[in-house]
Amino acid sequence: MPGLSEFELIDQFLKPLSAGAPGAFLLSDDAAVLPYLQEGSVHVVTKDALTIGVHMLADDPPADMARKALRVNLSDLASMGATPVGFFMALCLGVDTDESFLRSYTNGLASDVAEFKVPLMGGDVIRQRGPFTVTITAIGVVQRTKLLRRSGAQPGDSLWVSGTIGDGALGLLSARGEVGHLTQGHKSALINRYQVPQPRFYLGQKLGDLASACIDISDGLISDVGHLCAASNVGCTIHANQIPLSDAAHSCLLDKPALLENVLSGGDDYELAFAVPPGKKTALKSLTVDKEITVSRIGEFTHSPDVLVLDEAGATIPIAQTGYRHI
Amino acid sequence: MPGLSEFELIDQFLKPLSAGAPGAFLLSDDAAVLPYLQEGSVHVVTKDALTIGVHMLADDPPADMARKALRVNLSDLASMGATPVGFFMALCLGVDTDESFLRSYTNGLASDVAEFKVPLMGGDVIRQRGPFTVTITAIGVVQRTKLLRRSGAQPGDSLWVSGTIGDGALGLLSARGEVGHLTQGHKSALINRYQVPQPRFYLGQKLGDLASACIDISDGLISDVGHLCAASNVGCTIHANQIPLSDAAHSCLLDKPALLENVLSGGDDYELAFAVPPGKKTALKSLTVDKEITVSRIGEFTHSPDVLVLDEAGATIPIAQTGYRHI
Repeated sequence: MPGLSEFELIDQFLKPLSAGAPGAFLLSDDAAVLPYLQEGSVHVVTKDALTIGVHMLADDPPADMARKALRVNLSDLASMGATPVGFFMALCLGVDTDESFLRSYTNGLASDVAEFKVPLMGGDVIRQRGPFTVTITAIGVVQRTKLLRRSGAQPGDSLWVSGTIGDGALGLLSARGEVGHLTQGHKSALINRYQVPQPRFYLGQKLGDLASACIDISDGLISDVGHLCAASNVGCTIHANQIPLSDAAHSCLLDKPALLENVLSGGDDYELAFAVPPGKKTALKSLTVDKEITVSRIGEFTHSPDVLVLDEAGATIPIAQTGYRHI
Repeated sequence: MPGLSEFELIDQFLKPLSAGAPGAFLLSDDAAVLPYLQEGSVHVVTKDALTIGVHMLADDPPADMARKALRVNLSDLASMGATPVGFFMALCLGVDTDESFLRSYTNGLASDVAEFKVPLMGGDVIRQRGPFTVTITAIGVVQRTKLLRRSGAQPGDSLWVSGTIGDGALGLLSARGEVGHLTQGHKSALINRYQVPQPRFYLGQKLGDLASACIDISDGLISDVGHLCAASNVGCTIHANQIPLSDAAHSCLLDKPALLENVLSGGDDYELAFAVPPGKKTALKSLTVDKEITVSRIGEFTHSPDVLVLDEAGATIPIAQTGYRHI
């Protein structure tokens, strides 16, 4: 970048994002110190990488790329029931990443740093001979007894999801012009879900007392429920007609029913999927009604190891693509 | 990669590296849990990114790339006085990263996981349209009272370094065929220093009681001593003839005296540079003699903000390039 050194970039764009973390030492040391924990709490750590062309489109606003990179990590913390403490970021600038990109990117990041009270605590900046890629390591804290895991679901527990499902995948298709007739409002709503996911912290933190297992939906509903089932050594039956859809997604499916496949198997929703034991259903209902959180019961866990999706008539819907990614 | 999915890669190559960390849950959850801390201890976290073509050469053995990526992070922990707990890794596979590369890479990583007792605790695998790039987040633990910082050096403290200086930079030049006549043994020794740095844990951990400030030499001696001086609000005078050199580096300088510039300003040594108050010198000497650790006194900290390098006659050696990297 003509004129802008690594140290100037850190000073001007990144240091201000670290102000909320005393242990980040204004990004001036070799490592940062995590805050002390209260008795019985533990730190949880997650790390995700995103690259233009796979997880973000080259035309996405850089501010939204930053927010997505941070939020997919925060969503992992939410799925463990944790509260965010801070994050570390490695920016791998691409051959054409310029100062204006970085200004927009860090502005987007700053708004999420403020919104989620999650300061930047350290990281690295390099330039690579490829596209812009970013990896983020997010640190959270949770009481040990409220830690959510993928394991723990029992046959007889019910499967719930937060929010609406399929918007991320349909948003990606919309951005590529691959869905049919959509109003501009619906199109924007879907693309926004793809570009700027909402980590479900509040729900995740409350589920520590209510859910027997939890995962965030990043690979796709079927795939991630499959991960949860594998870790819990159970199976699951999902009722397609109970899967909550946004108005925009409804509109897509009316136009092209085959897009149900994308709703079931596409990724990027970052909603929580979780198992609720029979005795906890009332508590979940009262929590979500109080806080206006949308959760939907979409299935039940079974002894059989399979994940089945049933249509309204109770017939199995064949699932071709299950988020099983080749790299 | 034909036939190898992300999940198979994680199962076959990465899961075995997590065995030493119960909180990694065999890489099966959305996030890992860090171990409990003893009273008075804190977690420290560092994150570095490396890409082929900048921090590693395309011809470097993949096993050495893995070890370098891990060790540059471990070196940051050492410079804070910390003991490693575990690490998180995002592999950004390049367009031509194949299974044989990954097999060699993870074999190299496995040897360091065992040597340094630092398990893999989580991370991500993506494919990007560029070169192989890796980011590692290393977690360490240190007693709060023994935490080393870049700040804290006082005028009158002496400047010390571990090991020998300049081998990393000369190793890179050797690998590129840019140094003159060298024996094969010297050439291999230098290239090995560039490819596989040695994190100075034991020394770092002991310096908590002895040093007033510390940094690891990654950008270059002058640049990193400059960082330490800036953080401590002091200056430093370095005596060029006291800088410890390996036999191989001596041989390079005899052949081409201008390479002194590379010794002073080149990076990739990953030795520690640290400030020792006058009253602690005897304790340092006895520690290092007991444990056969090589440390050398190469200068002293001053009130003036400048970092000066003096030759044998006491004249200032002009430094053109100071590790100030444009990105």
